[in-house]
Amino acid sequence: MLYPQPIQDLVEELAKLPGVGPKTAQRLAFFLLNMPKGEAELLANAIVNARSHIRYCSECFNFTDSDPCAICRNPSRDAAWVMVVEHPKDVVAMEKTREFKGRYHVLHGAISPMEGVGPDDLKVRELINRINAAAPREIVLATSSSLEGEATALYLARLLKPMGFKVTRIARGLPMGGDLDYTDEMTLAKSLEGRQDI
Amino acid sequence: MLYPQPIQDLVEELAKLPGVGPKTAQRLAFFLLNMPKGEAELLANAIVNARSHIRYCSECFNFTDSDPCAICRNPSRDAAWVMVVEHPKDVVAMEKTREFKGRYHVLHGAISPMEGVGPDDLKVRELINRINAAAPREIVLATSSSLEGEATALYLARLLKPMGFKVTRIARGLPMGGDLDYTDEMTLAKSLEGRQDI
Repeated sequence: MLYPQPIQDLVEELAKLPGVGPKTAQRLAFFLLNMPKGEAELLANAIVNARSHIRYCSECFNFTDSDPCAICRNPSRDAAWVMVVEHPKDVVAMEKTREFKGRYHVLHGAISPMEGVGPDDLKVRELINRINAAAPREIVLATSSSLEGEATALYLARLLKPMGFKVTRIARGLPMGGDLDYTDEMTLAKSLEGRQDI
Repeated sequence: MLYPQPIQDLVEELAKLPGVGPKTAQRLAFFLLNMPKGEAELLANAIVNARSHIRYCSECFNFTDSDPCAICRNPSRDAAWVMVVEHPKDVVAMEKTREFKGRYHVLHGAISPMEGVGPDDLKVRELINRINAAAPREIVLATSSSLEGEATALYLARLLKPMGFKVTRIARGLPMGGDLDYTDEMTLAKSLEGRQDI
């Protein structure tokens, strides 16, 4: 054994984090050991605290420390405008634009036959129940434009449109600041397909 | 505020880790939130446990959970053969070669006038006291071959040789500017084998 057991344990736990290999785990462990004890405990407490206080919002299934979440109980957010996203981090990304004034629905994943993730593994049933009750004016599908995200959007569109809802998909095209030259064919094809009057 | 406070706190604490920017901190935080609660707590406990049980060995100043450390109290390790290294991670790297059968002395840094680190900031006095008491047969200087590591080796050689000790420096099989930590075992083993009088 190269390390004393408590260091070994710490390295092993850190190595479970995404993108953290054995070398990075060792570096993080030694960094934590060299930190003032109080500061290392701040991190430990933040983990325990987040895990015990954060749960899903019963409306939108975003992470929240109070139910319903801050967005769902905000009366200035349009309850009739619902954006469907894959992950809580997508809510953060969209909120940074300050452009969307509606509410969210977090699926917690995307349909992926490869990984054995079907609609029943996502918050799809919850979405149906919610929109059946609230009858939104528009549902924006803002899943990612990966294979899984596109498949999920297609699945939801086919499910929701026959129910009479207006369903839209966020535009896919050239990113701002992007060169045509450095953009892949799929994206360029989408940007042509989605062209609009100017 | 984009996140509920407990997530905000967790992201901020994670972002204090080396090599972890705001984006990675967010990714780690969401990963921890998606982990089973027990597993996230394993990490938190490992941090607290390591910080409370790990201290410096009073002999060699390596990290240890028992004093003296496993190496210093191992009777099959040659107490008259002392290797001086900068960091605990360097002990781990050298131990992986299985070539060194002596004991270590961890300086916890290297002399760096640029960063205001002098001999008094390192475990140099402790090294002097220790070798004065134990009179080792040989002291191997295994600081890194960075500017600071070389300066530290030179400083220690000038200090220890007039005291009558045999002082050696690991061979420059080590690439210049390289850390022990990032060098493969073969190179480290060669550098031990090719050590020369200094």
